[in-house]
Amino acid sequence: MASEIVKCIECGKEHSTSDIVYTCSGCGNLLEVSLPLRELDTETVRSAFDSRPLGVWRYREMLPEIACGPVSMDEGGTPLHRCSTLSERLGVAELYIKFDGMNPTGSFKDRGMTVGVSKAVDLGVRKVACASTGNTSASLAAYAGLASLRCVVIIPSGQIALGKLSQAMMHGAKVLAVRGNFDDAMELVILAGKELKLYVLNSVNPFRIEGQKTAAMEVCDQLGRAPDTLVIPVGNGGNSAAYWKGFSEYRQVGLTDAVPVIYGIQAEGAAPIARAFERGEERIDPVKEPETVATAIRIGNPANWKKTIRAIKSSGGTSITVTDEEIIEAQKMIARTEGLFVEPAAASSIAGLEKLLERGTVDSDQRIVCVATGHGLKDPDSAIRNSEKPVEIDPDMESLRAALGS
Amino acid sequence: MASEIVKCIECGKEHSTSDIVYTCSGCGNLLEVSLPLRELDTETVRSAFDSRPLGVWRYREMLPEIACGPVSMDEGGTPLHRCSTLSERLGVAELYIKFDGMNPTGSFKDRGMTVGVSKAVDLGVRKVACASTGNTSASLAAYAGLASLRCVVIIPSGQIALGKLSQAMMHGAKVLAVRGNFDDAMELVILAGKELKLYVLNSVNPFRIEGQKTAAMEVCDQLGRAPDTLVIPVGNGGNSAAYWKGFSEYRQVGLTDAVPVIYGIQAEGAAPIARAFERGEERIDPVKEPETVATAIRIGNPANWKKTIRAIKSSGGTSITVTDEEIIEAQKMIARTEGLFVEPAAASSIAGLEKLLERGTVDSDQRIVCVATGHGLKDPDSAIRNSEKPVEIDPDMESLRAALGS
Repeated sequence: MASEIVKCIECGKEHSTSDIVYTCSGCGNLLEVSLPLRELDTETVRSAFDSRPLGVWRYREMLPEIACGPVSMDEGGTPLHRCSTLSERLGVAELYIKFDGMNPTGSFKDRGMTVGVSKAVDLGVRKVACASTGNTSASLAAYAGLASLRCVVIIPSGQIALGKLSQAMMHGAKVLAVRGNFDDAMELVILAGKELKLYVLNSVNPFRIEGQKTAAMEVCDQLGRAPDTLVIPVGNGGNSAAYWKGFSEYRQVGLTDAVPVIYGIQAEGAAPIARAFERGEERIDPVKEPETVATAIRIGNPANWKKTIRAIKSSGGTSITVTDEEIIEAQKMIARTEGLFVEPAAASSIAGLEKLLERGTVDSDQRIVCVATGHGLKDPDSAIRNSEKPVEIDPDMESLRAALGS
Repeated sequence: MASEIVKCIECGKEHSTSDIVYTCSGCGNLLEVSLPLRELDTETVRSAFDSRPLGVWRYREMLPEIACGPVSMDEGGTPLHRCSTLSERLGVAELYIKFDGMNPTGSFKDRGMTVGVSKAVDLGVRKVACASTGNTSASLAAYAGLASLRCVVIIPSGQIALGKLSQAMMHGAKVLAVRGNFDDAMELVILAGKELKLYVLNSVNPFRIEGQKTAAMEVCDQLGRAPDTLVIPVGNGGNSAAYWKGFSEYRQVGLTDAVPVIYGIQAEGAAPIARAFERGEERIDPVKEPETVATAIRIGNPANWKKTIRAIKSSGGTSITVTDEEIIEAQKMIARTEGLFVEPAAASSIAGLEKLLERGTVDSDQRIVCVATGHGLKDPDSAIRNSEKPVEIDPDMESLRAALGS
């Protein structure tokens, strides 16, 4: 039986899955996990998957082997919400929101962390670390707690949303706030990983991508087929690459017959990948001072840019930008028409879809899935800043009538 | 075929389910929905339930009829997390946390709201309202948005957690902050309901309890039987009564053979029900100025006190108090050992279990379920206040080493 390996996406160099390695030891490029999927029988895996509830470990035959058993807390299995009022408003036939904010720590990061932290336990490490705009640190801190590992998280000082900060702190991680931005934090954690022997669970870690790819498989199972179009926020670029890998491998195993066209949405002030598409180039110019209300995608130098550009290109899609105003408007619209409270970065996919429809890039008769990566509770401050303020009243009917104008 | 009715828990007076009525039109006492459960065949409902995913509407044969189809967004179906490190630490054989913070709006309230708002649509109302310590308003605002109903929420000014406030605002509810406490807000909304023809979806609304009871049924299905012991936070008293109704009806239909002993946990500074148990009385003395870090259960005059005292007594349990310090300690312990971030009120069940074990009220060899009612992201401020602060560093290895002491 062929076994799983970790392979460089550029030079193809193979690494053992038991080595602690984040980038290619030959050329320094990104790595990905390569599994012996050819050995899988379609009918056998189909019936194995169907016998388990929806969630990351439903797909264990298509995930890296974990000898110690998974470190898991019911991640994945999130709703594929069929939009009704919102579909009408946007004039599309069939629109779904994959609401990954309903993971245990409130974001899609849990899908990757259950695999990444399980792998850490398998490797026998005792200390884990990450740099984060907030969601990754929240998720790593939680899974490290569950696995009794020590955890260090490095965040850009003053730049992460309140909910996310409270999570890393409550789960007992050592929280270091660097005077700098996310890209500075990222550089530092890579260095710290080497010098202090911390296992680094950033999105360049190929095992995390394995967990994240299950979202694509869930979408196929929930719809009974792959969608035509997937619209997804792009920050560090890991998740769009993960979706593409998930759809592609599901097709390879014979569990779906198509891969959707993937559109990557970036915030206007942090859009190195969208700019690369505009220029028609396959490489990015990093943005020095990324700025957007969508803190989860405020990233100027995305670590996975090469993977995500390839993924989006291979699918036949592109990457575009949306403004902060469009993001906030979309966030409100989703909350008010569909009852789903998503964080600003997550709302960028709906904002992006509106633009893609206007431009005629996406047709209204397609089966469209927008990915909502994180829960709105992650960033209460931004929601409060952008909403109508509560009206203070005395506890009597007169004051109440006056406030309601009735 | 017998049909469903709404019945007074005290005088037994029957009301039609199509009447808008919150308390008995005869004696003013609490109402409950009575369903024709005797007509259900055990095998038939068992196989119907098994054919659907876990969640509120899995149990539709045991829920009120909704003519218009449910207003739903995948509420319920929450994890029953088996505790490992925490079980060892508390010295118990089998401990589970029912993590209802993983509902769409982050609390158990969604279970009740999907039924309550569906009923509102059935009744043809266009405006809904509630008083709330935060979670109810978040949930009602979300479901009202989904159902395109106008929504008014009345909260005690300055007393609700940040996350919850952001939800009501983002979902587009009209938020009125009364200068007073929750009990004042509750009185006002009842009045407003009558005078302004708002459909009131507080926990006295018997249809909400119907949705909430499904958590008990899920626990039975997840465990394969009822637990021996259920430990649950008590604020307004609706949820403990709902669990008891759920277990009892599941037994009545033949889907489980036992009802667990229910222990209701209250915060020291807001404990009218625990005090009633201490005095051995079946009535409460309201607490004028309730005070606790667990804002979700900061209620001095619980509307459902009669139902909850009956439920706890019937199950053979009791109600005890925990201090704010014990609540915060429990919250940290759950986050750090099990990876689950629960809000302070939710942590009171684990804090209470510790006390019940110490006192020998609960045996360590029992199968124990603690209910975690809401997600920690609901109250980031409290988590940050009670955790170790982040350490500010410069983006270099020297600063990092100094901060880690390595």
